[in-house]
Amino acid sequence: MGYEYDEDTAVEAVSEGRWAATVTDRWSIAGRPNGGYLLAIAGRAAAAALPHPDPVTTSAHFLRPPAPGPVELAVEVVRTGRTLSTAEVRMTQDGAEILRALTTFADLADNPGSVTQLGGPPELAPMDSLLDPPAELPDGSVAEIVRRFTYGVEPALVGWAFGQPTKAGIAQGWLAFADGRPFDSTSLLLVVDAYWPAAFDLGVRGWVPTVEMTAHVRARPEPGPLRVHVRSRFLVGRYVEEDAEVWDSADRLVAQGRQLAMLPPQR
Amino acid sequence: MGYEYDEDTAVEAVSEGRWAATVTDRWSIAGRPNGGYLLAIAGRAAAAALPHPDPVTTSAHFLRPPAPGPVELAVEVVRTGRTLSTAEVRMTQDGAEILRALTTFADLADNPGSVTQLGGPPELAPMDSLLDPPAELPDGSVAEIVRRFTYGVEPALVGWAFGQPTKAGIAQGWLAFADGRPFDSTSLLLVVDAYWPAAFDLGVRGWVPTVEMTAHVRARPEPGPLRVHVRSRFLVGRYVEEDAEVWDSADRLVAQGRQLAMLPPQR
Repeated sequence: MGYEYDEDTAVEAVSEGRWAATVTDRWSIAGRPNGGYLLAIAGRAAAAALPHPDPVTTSAHFLRPPAPGPVELAVEVVRTGRTLSTAEVRMTQDGAEILRALTTFADLADNPGSVTQLGGPPELAPMDSLLDPPAELPDGSVAEIVRRFTYGVEPALVGWAFGQPTKAGIAQGWLAFADGRPFDSTSLLLVVDAYWPAAFDLGVRGWVPTVEMTAHVRARPEPGPLRVHVRSRFLVGRYVEEDAEVWDSADRLVAQGRQLAMLPPQR
Repeated sequence: MGYEYDEDTAVEAVSEGRWAATVTDRWSIAGRPNGGYLLAIAGRAAAAALPHPDPVTTSAHFLRPPAPGPVELAVEVVRTGRTLSTAEVRMTQDGAEILRALTTFADLADNPGSVTQLGGPPELAPMDSLLDPPAELPDGSVAEIVRRFTYGVEPALVGWAFGQPTKAGIAQGWLAFADGRPFDSTSLLLVVDAYWPAAFDLGVRGWVPTVEMTAHVRARPEPGPLRVHVRSRFLVGRYVEEDAEVWDSADRLVAQGRQLAMLPPQR
């Protein structure tokens, strides 16, 4: 038996440049597949077509709400260079395009130079001393994706579920795959979106669909759980940005994510 | 006579979905056209094809170094919805694709809801009391783009030009078009990249080409000069991210930019 992530992001060659995959219901929130999960499937299809192994920057525009079920992926190799290569991925479901992504790969094992970090991981208590939240939400819906990970969060940061957001606009904590799968660079496309919307901590309730998400993978993660810091600072009408930083066990920044999402109407 | 920005980002219809433009040398740094300038040209071509007026999120992957001269743009309308519409733009020069972008437009005049800002513009002295740096760089090269804007920066933040970076990783200050053109939403695609690389303030020297840039336009700017805050915090080997925030005269966040750029080798 393989790991859940590997099974659920697997892509199967259909013909030249075309792939099939199945969006399972295991990475959903109230029946809606997670955007980062779709990005990871797209990343795996691109990886199969490009000579470089690591998705250093991936930008996806979400076109229609996805549903669990089969999807098709059309991958175009846009450019192949010595250091960087770029692909475009179009994901369709029932004949309608649900996501279009541009992704540029490199080889992060060949990334010499110094490291400067003007910032560090969030300060967290040990993972097993913190809360691993339940998948069942107070409104009766289920976030299946929560079962796929082990989280470790301060209880105050899930106060929004009980009507008590901290108003700091933060979601953060530890993260590991529940079945123990180690993180690789492509899985970070899912990780940047694996926490709930940080806007919940500002009092937002309801579905916050992603319009566009960009993930930068900065390094291959060292073994061990990750630390994820997600923040939303600017809610303007219907739109909010969400920034994610992902840190590995060596205190290295391994990924950054930024998305633009839509807020529910009538705030 | 029109404004420089309007002249230099103009797109001319060639055929269905195809546009021609001229990349002038007026927005270059040492002969290399600015990435945000190319993004603004792409944004204008997309705007001509989409029913919504404001580029709320635009992601571009830069494929080859551009040069001043003619370019062609192929615009595909990917999806048109009531609230959002998405286009893809491929920019080619001499037959080679130099930039591919995905952009999603909306109507920011129709964006009801409350505004929450957990952050504000940089604190700056009055614009005319600050430095408007020269276009001539200490190494003898010329940054033509600097002539297109009036800047207002603290002298310490251009100390890098004299071997004295502050090491804060910041570029910030006031910004206005030198010829007085007001800013609209599409021009913010240029504004997020109108300052020099913040990595210069960390001691980086040389060309820092953009691999990918995403700009979020959050509101239409009120009249008056903008305040721009640009920051780089993580230099890892060959890659650095750069985050920009743009504020209008009403202290509203009007745009955010994030790019992944390549650092010169041998640091």
